Amino acid sequence: QTLKIGLIPADGIGHEVIPAARVAIEALGSDIPKPEFHDLLAGFELFKRTGEALPEDTVETLKECDCALFGAVSSPSTKVTGYSSPIVALRKKLDLYANIRPVLSVAPSPDQQPDVDLIVVRENTECLYVKQEELTNGTNGKEARATRLITERASRRIGQMAFELALARPRKHLTIIHKSNVLSITDGLFRETVRAVPSLDSVGGRYNDVTIAEQLVDSAVYRLFREPQIYDVMVAPNLYGDILSDAAAALVGSLGLVPSVNAGDNFVMGEPVHGSAPDIAGKGIANPIASMRSAALMLRHLGYTKGADRIDKAVDEVVREGKTLTPDLGGTSKTQEVIDEVVKRI
Amino acid sequence: QTLKIGLIPADGIGHEVIPAARVAIEALGSDIPKPEFHDLLAGFELFKRTGEALPEDTVETLKECDCALFGAVSSPSTKVTGYSSPIVALRKKLDLYANIRPVLSVAPSPDQQPDVDLIVVRENTECLYVKQEELTNGTNGKEARATRLITERASRRIGQMAFELALARPRKHLTIIHKSNVLSITDGLFRETVRAVPSLDSVGGRYNDVTIAEQLVDSAVYRLFREPQIYDVMVAPNLYGDILSDAAAALVGSLGLVPSVNAGDNFVMGEPVHGSAPDIAGKGIANPIASMRSAALMLRHLGYTKGADRIDKAVDEVVREGKTLTPDLGGTSKTQEVIDEVVKRI
Ligand SMILES: CC(C)[C@H](C(=O)O)[C@@H](O)C(=O)O
Ligand SMILES: CC(C)[C@H](C(=O)O)[C@@H](O)C(=O)O
Repeated sequence: QTLKIGLIPADGIGHEVIPAARVAIEALGSDIPKPEFHDLLAGFELFKRTGEALPEDTVETLKECDCALFGAVSSPSTKVTGYSSPIVALRKKLDLYANIRPVLSVAPSPDQQPDVDLIVVRENTECLYVKQEELTNGTNGKEARATRLITERASRRIGQMAFELALARPRKHLTIIHKSNVLSITDGLFRETVRAVPSLDSVGGRYNDVTIAEQLVDSAVYRLFREPQIYDVMVAPNLYGDILSDAAAALVGSLGLVPSVNAGDNFVMGEPVHGSAPDIAGKGIANPIASMRSAALMLRHLGYTKGADRIDKAVDEVVREGKTLTPDLGGTSKTQEVIDEVVKRI
Repeated sequence: QTLKIGLIPADGIGHEVIPAARVAIEALGSDIPKPEFHDLLAGFELFKRTGEALPEDTVETLKECDCALFGAVSSPSTKVTGYSSPIVALRKKLDLYANIRPVLSVAPSPDQQPDVDLIVVRENTECLYVKQEELTNGTNGKEARATRLITERASRRIGQMAFELALARPRKHLTIIHKSNVLSITDGLFRETVRAVPSLDSVGGRYNDVTIAEQLVDSAVYRLFREPQIYDVMVAPNLYGDILSDAAAALVGSLGLVPSVNAGDNFVMGEPVHGSAPDIAGKGIANPIASMRSAALMLRHLGYTKGADRIDKAVDEVVREGKTLTPDLGGTSKTQEVIDEVVKRI
């Protein structure tokens, strides 16, 4: 038996951190089925060379894989006709409707509680990410309009995912993020649908064990910085989730630590939350930890808990020791040195 | 000569903090024209009593005033048919297209630089705040759609405002906030239009002294927490500006310190950035500082620099001394005690 893993480094430091995830997985030996890696193309660099950001072949190969790891994409600095973000497209094409982003600080010792321990559960297929935009000429010069779509179906399945994740945690607390004081219909639908999940979907009333709270997105960001410990699981429409997960990452020291998975019912794709970091790309100093943790999170999602734990524990030890850290964490180590330290401990 | 000021406490602690702004203005004596206050109604409480959140009389009286101060509005906790936020409506009816939110920390001594000193310039009339939403039934159950509108005209005038504000500051640095990697048409238009302001509107090339940077909104929030000193003036579409200003407020200790003005070409309305805080309303412990600073900002906008300076200086002294602070800042003082301390120093 093998575990087929698609690897899509894409742009910038994606090429430096995806290999880190690969060696972490390889170090697990018989704790997981023998991994079989497939190198796949996508990205803005690729688009510039070939006119294609997401080749059909990449999508087709992924459909035959068990899971995948995605690096990061660069954003064009001016409008580029015909280019569209491959990560946004992949999430939709593979129906990876949940973007799960655990944000966890490393406590000074293994028996202490971390200061920050929350999960952002971000709806991953709709909101403004449906990319229905149009440009017209009107009385106000150019007028651009985008559609923000929120459906009952997508809100319900992301709600279920959030309830499941909350149930599996000690606090069992869920905060629904919205802005229904302005967007009473779209965010109103999101809020009401998530709130209704326990009465519609709870097998034997299990979801009733979850405490539900809610917050307007602006004040959620404010409180996230002031009192992050109030949050356990946060569920949000796509764009708010995008912003909230970056905000939460700032609390744990670096975006270079924060992993995610894009999960659907039949496929899971790990992805570090950081971007392609063009300013440091190619210098060998990118933090490989978010990528390694994304591999762990992907394995955990597939049920390979032991393998996932081994990677996470090794990473925690290296962060806790604080001797081998990349510059984003105030260290002076190279990507490869961090990889070596982690792999040694796996 | 008189200065006609509309006062709209609206909901919750609005009723406790707007009187603070009033006494601060009254304390200025002959530094400003004799103030003439007009108490005006609006809010969710009013809606519950009368079915109207923003009476026509309030809007008509405001049009005869020179300026106004708005408190805060409560948000219904479930969908309420017929209710629509009066502050969003007022901004549109009076064409107050710029929401200017300076976020400034108080340095330990007057001759030291504050850690945080930035202005969020938020477009105040469009984006998702146009509130064009519709609900249909489709293959995904209920489907809700909202329109996000970005026009060249609104982007250009908020851009001009941002360039003017940047020019008046020592660093003359402007960061354009957008998400054009996803919203290439709407945020693309915002970005390009603001970037084009110096070539279209700069009288004698003045705007060329401003250094322009840009940031995607998610990474802007991240960097705001990690290195707030990189920002000077930030200009953003409506919703991003809403989120960014709350995020920035977290950096200076409390939302209870952060003022704003809603400014148009012919009218200015001060408004503390905090909400109606139902949890503490009526307890006499609301922080009056954001409201007093909003009065100062309003006066500054009208050209009454001396009066504005006197209020700001008095507030800074009270914050710096740290003896008379409300609970949001870790103190034990009442609203009235803070008001008294500030007014004594004006
Ligand atoms: C690159 C960009 C399209 C993407 C997003 O907005 O989803 C990124 O910010 C992320 O969070 O994964
Ligand atoms: C109350 C609400 C409609 C408002 C907004 O979103 O603009 C508030 O959050 C603000 O920042 O002034």
